[in-house]
Amino acid sequence: MHLSRYFLPILKETPKEAEIVSHRLMLRAGMIRQETAGIYAWLPMGLRVLRKIEQIVREEQNRAGAQELLMPTVQPADLWRESGRYDAYGKEMLRITDRHEREMLFGPTNEEMVTDIFRASVKSYRDLPLNLYHIQWKFRDEVRPRFGVMRGREFLMKDAYSFDLDKESARHAYNRMFVAYLRTFARMGLKAIPMRADTGPIGGDMSHEFIILASTGESEVFCDKAILDLPIPGEDTDFTADLSPVITDWTTPYAATDEMHDTAAFEAVPEAERMSARGIEVGHIFYFGTKYSEPMNAKVTGPDGAEVPVHMGSYGVGVSRLLGAIIEAHHDDDGIVWPASVAPFHVGIINLKPGDAATDAACADLEAQLAKAGLDVLVDDVDSRAGAKFATMDLIGLPYQLIVGPRGLKDGVVEVKARASGERATLSPQEAVNRLIGELSS
Amino acid sequence: MHLSRYFLPILKETPKEAEIVSHRLMLRAGMIRQETAGIYAWLPMGLRVLRKIEQIVREEQNRAGAQELLMPTVQPADLWRESGRYDAYGKEMLRITDRHEREMLFGPTNEEMVTDIFRASVKSYRDLPLNLYHIQWKFRDEVRPRFGVMRGREFLMKDAYSFDLDKESARHAYNRMFVAYLRTFARMGLKAIPMRADTGPIGGDMSHEFIILASTGESEVFCDKAILDLPIPGEDTDFTADLSPVITDWTTPYAATDEMHDTAAFEAVPEAERMSARGIEVGHIFYFGTKYSEPMNAKVTGPDGAEVPVHMGSYGVGVSRLLGAIIEAHHDDDGIVWPASVAPFHVGIINLKPGDAATDAACADLEAQLAKAGLDVLVDDVDSRAGAKFATMDLIGLPYQLIVGPRGLKDGVVEVKARASGERATLSPQEAVNRLIGELSS
Repeated sequence: MHLSRYFLPILKETPKEAEIVSHRLMLRAGMIRQETAGIYAWLPMGLRVLRKIEQIVREEQNRAGAQELLMPTVQPADLWRESGRYDAYGKEMLRITDRHEREMLFGPTNEEMVTDIFRASVKSYRDLPLNLYHIQWKFRDEVRPRFGVMRGREFLMKDAYSFDLDKESARHAYNRMFVAYLRTFARMGLKAIPMRADTGPIGGDMSHEFIILASTGESEVFCDKAILDLPIPGEDTDFTADLSPVITDWTTPYAATDEMHDTAAFEAVPEAERMSARGIEVGHIFYFGTKYSEPMNAKVTGPDGAEVPVHMGSYGVGVSRLLGAIIEAHHDDDGIVWPASVAPFHVGIINLKPGDAATDAACADLEAQLAKAGLDVLVDDVDSRAGAKFATMDLIGLPYQLIVGPRGLKDGVVEVKARASGERATLSPQEAVNRLIGELSS
Repeated sequence: MHLSRYFLPILKETPKEAEIVSHRLMLRAGMIRQETAGIYAWLPMGLRVLRKIEQIVREEQNRAGAQELLMPTVQPADLWRESGRYDAYGKEMLRITDRHEREMLFGPTNEEMVTDIFRASVKSYRDLPLNLYHIQWKFRDEVRPRFGVMRGREFLMKDAYSFDLDKESARHAYNRMFVAYLRTFARMGLKAIPMRADTGPIGGDMSHEFIILASTGESEVFCDKAILDLPIPGEDTDFTADLSPVITDWTTPYAATDEMHDTAAFEAVPEAERMSARGIEVGHIFYFGTKYSEPMNAKVTGPDGAEVPVHMGSYGVGVSRLLGAIIEAHHDDDGIVWPASVAPFHVGIINLKPGDAATDAACADLEAQLAKAGLDVLVDDVDSRAGAKFATMDLIGLPYQLIVGPRGLKDGVVEVKARASGERATLSPQEAVNRLIGELSS
């Protein structure tokens, strides 16, 4: 992609309405535009990151044995009457009346609908376990939307729903998602800490929030630092095996949100190991047993021939919110510092003299070689001064910059800059390509 | 993917509510489930096809120089007041009031919002031409939703919007989308005929519908058969070049919908070449000049320093509707016959004796080899009789079936069946793999 033709409306001024750094940087870097309170359009560069995050979430859900479907955004109110939540949900639910005066709503979550899909076709324990997920836009009519995509009204969420014959198998389904979440967030360069959580309006008696530490976080969290050094389960994890040892490792060190905080237990942690900080919730998993399957009559025939309501859990990841969370964790004074796994482009080639035949040719050749290796490349071919180019490239935060100018080329060299460390290396074009491919292909 | 673990709720009965074959087959093949009138959940196999169609649309939009962004589903009413369409749009628009009594709507289309995004950041003719598109769920509150995803209320649409300095460049933008559409539909195995069309509530004075012929089509169309044999522009089309010769080729033979039909012109076509048929609209392109840019003040500074409103066009593809249209064009008495480019899986391996060690091992090996070559494979490992397996595989319509049983394996052979032609070949497992990779990899 060439910057001269790319729709990337960089803002020079810092937008006043943005209270936190991720919101500021997303606006300045031309990633999003607010259309009305808490509702954003995703401009091309923002959308690229959103899709990369979504794809990591998808891959880890599939790896853990969940199956993707897609439920609609608009739901009939009647389904929510069956569970009893239509009246209970309150003003956060966006209620809609259609032209025939039928009551509908813009889904804030999908327990009811997925239970309806399940009961229509699954009748036997032989078809269990089952975990269905989708990645879909949801709406919650927050009374005071703020912090950009961190607390928007229309937001993209991955929500998975597990169905099992009994509590024991449901616990295994829960553990699978627990491990999938550890892997998901780690792949995005986040240290997410699972914390025992309140179950709120979803209900149920087993629940963890996955929280990343950031000074702008909305909740206060307390943990034993030991949890920060635990190893992330590998790509070769066998999700059919017993995962409870992993869960035990991750739930033994103290970690709790404000709501669930137990001062005595926290003070039992050696003082040097105690940490209290602000946190951002990026995932939430619940086991809620038969809370929906009973009223909605989602039953299967068990091995003994008796009908029993299925045990369910639900598992959310705030996909669009993750962009904000990642930026909160990865930025500096100059702008965003994307982890390579979610960066909109891997490399930004800075052409210091567009129009100079040798420089243009060198940039085109470097771009072609990197693209051939499967890397996403943005070429700054805009006719502006070097300082502005460097500032833009630092602001948008691509992992590597490849700086190409006529003077360097005369000496047979280009410059590679790593955005995170600021390290620079002067290399021949071929060495630079090899270095970047080595660092970024995986 | 193994059928024993795949959420594929095949219906044995033909659903009574389905009036047309594509709706019946999508329900029977477990691709969709209706949640309420005109609103569907996409079950795993339906979603796979939807994503493949979406990806073809995306690739051809990108090839033609359009840039992807993503606008939200919910829009503020004020934007539509600026264009004057808020009151004009009528009952098809799903109007919403939020908790603060602000008027909003579930977007049926995005001319206003994209114009707002444009005017906020583009100020000079130097940033033109620009074409922005998104692939997003829309809502139109049809008075009588029917025909499954062909006329649903919540539907997935690709809508692109072009911005140009003057009518001449806007015509070039229009031609680019015209060519992109020819390529898009051809890649899905559809013969889509561009027909001069009425511009309806979008407005403007240049418009084509892309129509595929199907006996269940909603509109009557008339054309010169010559148009069916025109060559589709190649992958190497230069979208910066003058595309008007292609447009002339495709608009010279007579082709019109009922609304635009000119009996005299049609009768000038030699009788043997005249064709009248039913058609399904799968795409619609419009040029509408300054209809939105004037009232919404979307202006750029031209080369002479004067501010002028931009010339715009919009370009829609009914992504979810295409599933129905493709099935209408590709099915037989036994079920769906997917073109390989959009098939949910390329190959279905039928294990005739699950549990038999040699057969299971052969299926696993074939699956691994095909997957390694990048093919999507569904293995029927369910313990049921052969007849039921064949019927299911024919119903879901994967391009190739690979039939593996203990008797054949004893003789060192498996069977390959092509779904479309019904042709069968008895081959060694290795020959079968080579044949399938040869037919399907491209």
